Amino acid sequence: MKPLSATPRTSLGRYPERSTPDRAALYDILDAGLICHLGIVVNGTPRVIPTCYGRLDDTLYVHGSTGASSMMTAPSQEVCVTVTHLDGLVLARSLFHHSINYRSAMVYGVPSPVTGDDEKRAALRVITEQLAPGQWDAARQPTRKELAGVAVLALPLDEASVKVRQGPPGDDDEDYALPVWAGVLPVRQAFGAPVPDPALTPGIPVPAHIAAR
Amino acid sequence: MKPLSATPRTSLGRYPERSTPDRAALYDILDAGLICHLGIVVNGTPRVIPTCYGRLDDTLYVHGSTGASSMMTAPSQEVCVTVTHLDGLVLARSLFHHSINYRSAMVYGVPSPVTGDDEKRAALRVITEQLAPGQWDAARQPTRKELAGVAVLALPLDEASVKVRQGPPGDDDEDYALPVWAGVLPVRQAFGAPVPDPALTPGIPVPAHIAAR
Repeated sequence: MKPLSATPRTSLGRYPERSTPDRAALYDILDAGLICHLGIVVNGTPRVIPTCYGRLDDTLYVHGSTGASSMMTAPSQEVCVTVTHLDGLVLARSLFHHSINYRSAMVYGVPSPVTGDDEKRAALRVITEQLAPGQWDAARQPTRKELAGVAVLALPLDEASVKVRQGPPGDDDEDYALPVWAGVLPVRQAFGAPVPDPALTPGIPVPAHIAAR
Repeated sequence: MKPLSATPRTSLGRYPERSTPDRAALYDILDAGLICHLGIVVNGTPRVIPTCYGRLDDTLYVHGSTGASSMMTAPSQEVCVTVTHLDGLVLARSLFHHSINYRSAMVYGVPSPVTGDDEKRAALRVITEQLAPGQWDAARQPTRKELAGVAVLALPLDEASVKVRQGPPGDDDEDYALPVWAGVLPVRQAFGAPVPDPALTPGIPVPAHIAAR
């Protein structure tokens, strides 16, 4: 597996120990996420858009809409896609050493619009399965008209940085004696019980692939 | 309370019903978040950085580090700060109508670096209390040297857009008869039990303001 090569923007000036060139770590972070934040430049200014995505091998597929002007300007321009998992609040003895535990991936590159019905269907499958594994085969397939109404960008995983902070706070030596509680308050994303559509036809049970989460 | 005024980039072309000019909704979304995604332009290309923030009245304070080159280029340049809450996976009968329930706020503007010890201390207090209410008074206060080692940006809440999607899927009329389960799988951010620092002095209990979450 090819390691992530360092470029100026993926090389950290501060906290280099939080960076890893490990491609498997990149995959893990991307595969564990539900949404990403897509950064684009529109008229010279930044825009950060939450959206859905999925990964297949070394391609990241990002969901858009042909009606969203900001997505239409993105193809052939550089984007940054960031996926962040907040894992905990790091509560130190000193305010200065407060921090967060997290895993984040930032992917840079010029995305290509996915064109062609088969290619778009395959990309949407990746995005759908990222959100809800098993769902692609459970629901009605998209028509050609529906496919035409969705924009998907494909971004190669060529340039990316991975940052991870885990573990307890790191306080200054002289602060360990302070009578202040220190530790981590874990944060995680949790699923609730499925809420059926009020218009659901009676008698249709929650499928196993949804109930299992 | 001044409503959010529409600008070209805060006016949505698609799904205008998901947009609200309600400033109280902006406050609610910002106040409920733990991290934001800060979008900046570096050498003409976008960068999306997860970081901590806090709100006081109509100012958003965003945490940086004087060592992070990307933060140092941000002052006097336009930024976009996005806070997103993922509330659920919207599972429709057709793949085309799959969606997510979410609340998101995008704030645009040119931030000012917070300077001066008192101003910086006040801004850090806002950021700390956003992450962990009650923590500012519990931990050791920052020294002047520590204050100098932290960068904080102040962004006025002048231009922002709020988007919200909630509720069940909206399928095409003819799809409601399909034998496909439809509904929402709720997603939420949850706190775990506090994990004490292994180096914690024995006998210091978890403070109420942390245990209560």
